[in-house]
Amino acid sequence: MTQAKATRRLIILTEGHTEPITGKTASCILRYRPEEVVALLDSTKAGHTAQELMGVGGSTPVVAKLADAADANTLMIGIAPSGGRIPPAWKAIILDALSRGMNVVSGLHEFISDNPEFAAAATKSGAQIIDVRKNDEHDVSHRQNIREECLRIHTVGQDCSIGKMLVAVELTNALKKRGKDAKFIATGQTGIMVEGDGVPIDRVIADFVAGAIEKQVLAQQHHEMLVVEGQGSISHPKYSAVTLGLLHGCAPHAMILCYEAGRTNVYGMEYVKLQPLDKLLKVYETVASLVSPSKVIGIAINSRLLNAEQAAAERDKTRREFGLPTCDVVRDGPDELADAILKFNTERSLK
Amino acid sequence: MTQAKATRRLIILTEGHTEPITGKTASCILRYRPEEVVALLDSTKAGHTAQELMGVGGSTPVVAKLADAADANTLMIGIAPSGGRIPPAWKAIILDALSRGMNVVSGLHEFISDNPEFAAAATKSGAQIIDVRKNDEHDVSHRQNIREECLRIHTVGQDCSIGKMLVAVELTNALKKRGKDAKFIATGQTGIMVEGDGVPIDRVIADFVAGAIEKQVLAQQHHEMLVVEGQGSISHPKYSAVTLGLLHGCAPHAMILCYEAGRTNVYGMEYVKLQPLDKLLKVYETVASLVSPSKVIGIAINSRLLNAEQAAAERDKTRREFGLPTCDVVRDGPDELADAILKFNTERSLK
Repeated sequence: MTQAKATRRLIILTEGHTEPITGKTASCILRYRPEEVVALLDSTKAGHTAQELMGVGGSTPVVAKLADAADANTLMIGIAPSGGRIPPAWKAIILDALSRGMNVVSGLHEFISDNPEFAAAATKSGAQIIDVRKNDEHDVSHRQNIREECLRIHTVGQDCSIGKMLVAVELTNALKKRGKDAKFIATGQTGIMVEGDGVPIDRVIADFVAGAIEKQVLAQQHHEMLVVEGQGSISHPKYSAVTLGLLHGCAPHAMILCYEAGRTNVYGMEYVKLQPLDKLLKVYETVASLVSPSKVIGIAINSRLLNAEQAAAERDKTRREFGLPTCDVVRDGPDELADAILKFNTERSLK
Repeated sequence: MTQAKATRRLIILTEGHTEPITGKTASCILRYRPEEVVALLDSTKAGHTAQELMGVGGSTPVVAKLADAADANTLMIGIAPSGGRIPPAWKAIILDALSRGMNVVSGLHEFISDNPEFAAAATKSGAQIIDVRKNDEHDVSHRQNIREECLRIHTVGQDCSIGKMLVAVELTNALKKRGKDAKFIATGQTGIMVEGDGVPIDRVIADFVAGAIEKQVLAQQHHEMLVVEGQGSISHPKYSAVTLGLLHGCAPHAMILCYEAGRTNVYGMEYVKLQPLDKLLKVYETVASLVSPSKVIGIAINSRLLNAEQAAAERDKTRREFGLPTCDVVRDGPDELADAILKFNTERSLK
């Protein structure tokens, strides 16, 4: 029983995490699939709206229990914690949803369908469990049959959880608005939930990371341009394996470097300092070019912690320092970076 | 029923691959566990000796069928092909071994125990299946509680299949001979088969690669020094995810850079040129240092394709070019690199 996307009516579980970073899955679904969202589920914040707590989602209510969103037919896990385990306190809620016959969509590493109690409840009620990170990728990269006319853009970052997916989606949409046949390539659970396809690259066996994203490129290179969502950071102590395999597997012609203004330490590892952006820019260009020539052609700022004046100053400063097109795709709109991509593509086709 | 290592009597399956590179698992077991090997199984080379075909293993015979090595109680899969699938032609041999009650040890990605026919045969005969790459690593790296007094050395390389494991084992043994409490940390199936412990890092889910090797470091850092086996190459189009996750997860104080003299193209991807060694040396130092300061302190040559005179010239040339201790640990012995490690360790302890 495949659930048609149009009929999905979501209640998104964000218990204790109804905020933009830990709750980034919820936040992105509210941004890109608002018509599907009935409510957020967070007993600690019931009565508020999504807009108040997440900065997106308008009047979507936060409710205290499943029964308060009777219209919902699907429970979506709305957080993406490091390590991807199911928070123990959520187990009763998931079980309740499955017992009511609600489908459960999860992007966690710990699969809902692997839990015998959950699986039994789903079987009994006829509910469907969709573990977005489940995959059976078993192919290595070959770097053959790649259509170089198809432009490959990749968002890379200074850290995890800074908006590489959001930048990729906004740039894809901006390119489409300009009449280009652009396709967003999702590589994380949230991106896949938004786009409906892609590969959960951080869940792939290490030997097959490059092969798994290369397979996406081969399947989608009939498009004019691909914007491939980045993961983690080349300097991230936990996740750099994912970052480099993805970078080499999609072999981008050009990269957009993403950072969050004001962030100084690794998210979730506050005892580790972030590497300077200028150093990372050079490292990304160097390591990407080990497999295929690539350069950073623009910088995306996440300026959510700044006011308008500070954000404008930050944008000026970064643009000056790097001499590259620079913007916050949410605050400023994605035009400057979309233009940079089109200019790059024109120039490379003239070579 | 755990099989005591002392009683393992191996017949190693190398059908059609009784040579040092594709058959590197067989070759390393012959080198480091010769007392366990009864025969090699290769119907295309029966009658030869291991020494003739592999350059190690002395008079160990190559036989045509299982029945020709009646003393063997364990079939070991002796190749490590890209992608790690079971060659279809070998299935009958594996099934025959299991039906005879012989244990089967495999380092392939495709698990023997996942095949219902193999599993049924093992259950029926009481044979044991040991899939060395099977793991359940699910922990991210934390970079905490690391004992910096324990020296961490890591072998990194210009390509896959050039001897990073062999260099790590030889250096560990050389350090032990000098009275140091050194431990080899195996990260691949062959290393694990030789050492009896370690982690099959290329089979770990990408998010947990750094965490999995960090766990090995934490478990073994009561030793004076660890020599961690490297995997792939930072520039390898297929496997760089494994390489970088391993590098960042073990966060070496110093690295030994390994290359094969005369190799110009990526092994198994002959249409891809290798990156120059001097460039790779800088890239390794740069990316390793994103997580923890590190430098290359010596170079290990695999000079198997050269004669004695050529090998001596290559060694001189490389030593001059890089100004670093340089040797082929097999041909020249590991002394020069072992000395370099001890010198480095003394100098860092004086800082």
